[in-house]
Amino acid sequence: MKTLIVYAHPEPKSLNGSLKDLAVTTLENAGHEVRVSDLYAMNWKAVVDATDYGPHASDPLKVARDSGRAFSAGTLTPDVLAEQEKLLWADTIIFQFPLWWYTMPAILKGWVDRVFTYRFAYGVGEHSDTKYGERFGEGTLAGRRALLSVTAGGPESHYAARGINGPIEDLLFPIHHGILYYPGIEVLPPFVLYGTDRMSDEDYPAVAKAWEQRLLTLESTEPIAFRPQNFGDYEIPSLHLKQGLEPAGRTGFGLHVRG
Amino acid sequence: MKTLIVYAHPEPKSLNGSLKDLAVTTLENAGHEVRVSDLYAMNWKAVVDATDYGPHASDPLKVARDSGRAFSAGTLTPDVLAEQEKLLWADTIIFQFPLWWYTMPAILKGWVDRVFTYRFAYGVGEHSDTKYGERFGEGTLAGRRALLSVTAGGPESHYAARGINGPIEDLLFPIHHGILYYPGIEVLPPFVLYGTDRMSDEDYPAVAKAWEQRLLTLESTEPIAFRPQNFGDYEIPSLHLKQGLEPAGRTGFGLHVRG
Repeated sequence: MKTLIVYAHPEPKSLNGSLKDLAVTTLENAGHEVRVSDLYAMNWKAVVDATDYGPHASDPLKVARDSGRAFSAGTLTPDVLAEQEKLLWADTIIFQFPLWWYTMPAILKGWVDRVFTYRFAYGVGEHSDTKYGERFGEGTLAGRRALLSVTAGGPESHYAARGINGPIEDLLFPIHHGILYYPGIEVLPPFVLYGTDRMSDEDYPAVAKAWEQRLLTLESTEPIAFRPQNFGDYEIPSLHLKQGLEPAGRTGFGLHVRG
Repeated sequence: MKTLIVYAHPEPKSLNGSLKDLAVTTLENAGHEVRVSDLYAMNWKAVVDATDYGPHASDPLKVARDSGRAFSAGTLTPDVLAEQEKLLWADTIIFQFPLWWYTMPAILKGWVDRVFTYRFAYGVGEHSDTKYGERFGEGTLAGRRALLSVTAGGPESHYAARGINGPIEDLLFPIHHGILYYPGIEVLPPFVLYGTDRMSDEDYPAVAKAWEQRLLTLESTEPIAFRPQNFGDYEIPSLHLKQGLEPAGRTGFGLHVRG
């Protein structure tokens, strides 16, 4: 595998830092190529603004259009171009981050906002009355697989089907489906550690073993069966899921998973 | 009302900028006090790091603990203290932002990550085997109301109950419930504009009228009926919703809304 690890934590000696380090050594020892985007160490610029688009920043700024023009002209800033190049190089992408306020830290959201430009990650393919682009299962990053490795401070029960936070698969759906599957990436079931606020050093060996196990079985892990947009499951042009395709009683985000 | 508007868009001449300006004038003309946090104009630092916690940043950094110690000692950085002060001043908070990748832009997530510190927005109240803090309906920001005013590039049908993006109320749930209701803020139904990628100047007067109407009826708008954590709806300590409280067939995030 060619694995890109996108890692977002301010403290190298954190649990997230340890899991990132373990992923690098485990994958390299198994003969895989690994590259790391350590966003804090890179001092990653988190905020989209006109400077991202160089001569293609218009006045007034139009984020989608200008980012697409800069992408097409090859004039995006070097930091963004480098991340796009890594994504095109990789066949597997691991995101290592803590859940902060039920989603990714700002620095990682800023990586998405800036790297996933128009014409690269969205606005790809024909947009007409009969087609709304190549997305959700198609797109620039098709053929790649991604995995979220996430730490959550609270206990697992709070993230269960009836848990007060909402189910973890629904909390992660906007990332899994809306960010990763959108430009074509297949998404593996996440590796989630709960209760990390109260985790001690004695807990780490079991955690490390579970993580190594996931890493060494990535190639045989089945992705989440999200429904591709353009292969018959959705009405055109509403992009409503066709009636009757889902199991009885399924609603919400779960509609967009087959089986 | 004392209204804080937290606004996140890089272009003052954007639709988001116009909606923010309209909110200021509409509310002020109606006799309300308004303060604005224009995150781009403030050059808001989006990224949590050790510099936020001054002398209370430990080595290795512990984000939750260190932010709580700095909060309690009054040594958070002035930019964060100023935002906490505005939140305590306000009775109403409006967030104006574009949906980027189905959630808030990084600069606004960074406002949450940095301003919502331990002991201020989480880690409030008793944490024991019989209670897991004052949150979800209680907390430092109880008594306040918030409203998301959001622009979405895609068409409304894509955000409907069966739409491919997932239902808008589920996409916004991690913000509504996980970020705002968590520290005690009541959340009003959002003001969402769809199809803004294809909106023209001719569409703006109708949009402006609808937004003014929402602004002038904020005080009489009923909040979303999220279930408070500590008033009998949840099992202790699992914080699972008790069986039978929800309408038949309700699952997922919707479990945490009454009625």
